Amino acid sequence: MDDANGTPKVRALQALSPQTARSLVDSVDAFLFDCDGVIWKGDKLIDGVPEALQTLRSLGKKFVFVTNNSRKSRKQYMKKFLSLGINVNEEEIFSSSFAAAMFLKLNNFPQDKKVYVIGEEGIVEEMELAGFTCLGGPKDAEKTIQQMPNFRIEHDKSVGAVVVGLDLHVNYYKLHYATLCIRENPGCLFIATNRDALGHLTDSQECPGAGCMVAAVCGTTEKEPVVVGKPSTFMMDFLVKRFQIDTSKMCMVGDRLDTDILFGQNTGCKTLLVLSGITTLSALQDPSNNIHPDYYTSNVFSIADLLKK
Amino acid sequence: MDDANGTPKVRALQALSPQTARSLVDSVDAFLFDCDGVIWKGDKLIDGVPEALQTLRSLGKKFVFVTNNSRKSRKQYMKKFLSLGINVNEEEIFSSSFAAAMFLKLNNFPQDKKVYVIGEEGIVEEMELAGFTCLGGPKDAEKTIQQMPNFRIEHDKSVGAVVVGLDLHVNYYKLHYATLCIRENPGCLFIATNRDALGHLTDSQECPGAGCMVAAVCGTTEKEPVVVGKPSTFMMDFLVKRFQIDTSKMCMVGDRLDTDILFGQNTGCKTLLVLSGITTLSALQDPSNNIHPDYYTSNVFSIADLLKK
Repeated sequence: MDDANGTPKVRALQALSPQTARSLVDSVDAFLFDCDGVIWKGDKLIDGVPEALQTLRSLGKKFVFVTNNSRKSRKQYMKKFLSLGINVNEEEIFSSSFAAAMFLKLNNFPQDKKVYVIGEEGIVEEMELAGFTCLGGPKDAEKTIQQMPNFRIEHDKSVGAVVVGLDLHVNYYKLHYATLCIRENPGCLFIATNRDALGHLTDSQECPGAGCMVAAVCGTTEKEPVVVGKPSTFMMDFLVKRFQIDTSKMCMVGDRLDTDILFGQNTGCKTLLVLSGITTLSALQDPSNNIHPDYYTSNVFSIADLLKK
Repeated sequence: MDDANGTPKVRALQALSPQTARSLVDSVDAFLFDCDGVIWKGDKLIDGVPEALQTLRSLGKKFVFVTNNSRKSRKQYMKKFLSLGINVNEEEIFSSSFAAAMFLKLNNFPQDKKVYVIGEEGIVEEMELAGFTCLGGPKDAEKTIQQMPNFRIEHDKSVGAVVVGLDLHVNYYKLHYATLCIRENPGCLFIATNRDALGHLTDSQECPGAGCMVAAVCGTTEKEPVVVGKPSTFMMDFLVKRFQIDTSKMCMVGDRLDTDILFGQNTGCKTLLVLSGITTLSALQDPSNNIHPDYYTSNVFSIADLLKK
């Protein structure tokens, strides 16, 4: 969006206040929450989240949990929510693992073709639920390259898609296999769950995200992937169809500017940045940052808290 | 280089002939040979190489073997040459592992700082020969991330450089450790031995090159490395100093356009592409390719063979 002078239009930074919290909540029917850095950090619930969700539910708001983390399937996320004391149903969860499976389904990926996975159980589970056959993933975690004359990997010529997500067991064998499929199988798709540079495995440290594995595959294939997670708008099509709510009546709540807030802006949602995850206030305010949410606040709890004031 | 109309000047493609072979050999004092795809493919000598080298040596030509492959040190390359029946001395070998060590030395890298390595024995050996202390590399091949609450990697704050090369044992732990050093240690250098997308481990298949690991680190740190191997001109400074030969009296012989031939052109050498490795004739002739060597021929043997005609 440009103004009359052609200067990029950047929204002014506005901290959420009692007044704007009320008007934001009144103006939307659904909240889209990122999970890591918003609901939890790694394996630890962020303070005040259950209370805030309860307040918003009691006001009749719908929820969608939209996560780029592909390590779990929707079923596995359900268990995580329940173990942390938050009641959700599977329909409310949109993970990038599910998005990758839906991308193949919507694009009529043939059932006789296979999917090679650099990633974890979540991707494999969603693919199999969607009726696709997977190779790689956790099964190739221990595979190595044999250093002997004439060694070669014979790859499956029926692999029609390579899906790359966060993989704590990424190794040279998987990278080699994926590269062979993408380079040598005609028409083989290259799908990235997301390209987050960093994420949290626990709440104590940032660590490489799926963007690390995706870049590795780009570096050797010299190809660019289709991205199905945030900030790509792919997931929003489902959300709009399923919830029958216009995106202008949705608010995207996230901790990352270049995925969550950009995703919200790309799809016409209202946007709220919480400072409980990756983005610090100084990174938000840095002159080099040109992704400005409608509002920012410390954490999800403060939304409900400001409504009381 | 542009012509008077500002159109990029691309050399016409010229196959080496008996006449041009003679004039090329007469016009240079030294041949710079890439190794993989030129001298050998993986573990197998390319036919006719020893005879061709003998012919050129008998004409008084100097040799330099310039390889981007960082898996071995110069000492280890010496052994490989000898085992394949080619006599060379260590001074004639310039590997990207050696180049990385020389880069740190030339930049007065403090001896009390450490080097974290994503790569193999060759890098570690060259670093230690140059007096530097290494972490990572083969020692971290079996390291994994513990999936438990509060797990974090404590990285060494005295790491002042991360060197990334081809690593058949790349894993999440190494990528995480390297990322912590680059992001959190002030002034930490990020050095890539090279960015080759593909290479040969054996002669039977192309497989991911150092460009794969380097891209992975770029993908998570969102930083770009200093590249010391081809096509960077860094190695040429040494060659010129050591051999006291002007680059116009050198001919770079290689199998890759975007590393070998570009390196030769970037440094003012004559260039000869051999079709015994990565680049096919159709890739060379493809209209999208704008890196044209002075000459091309099938393999190193044909240089000597054409001299006889």
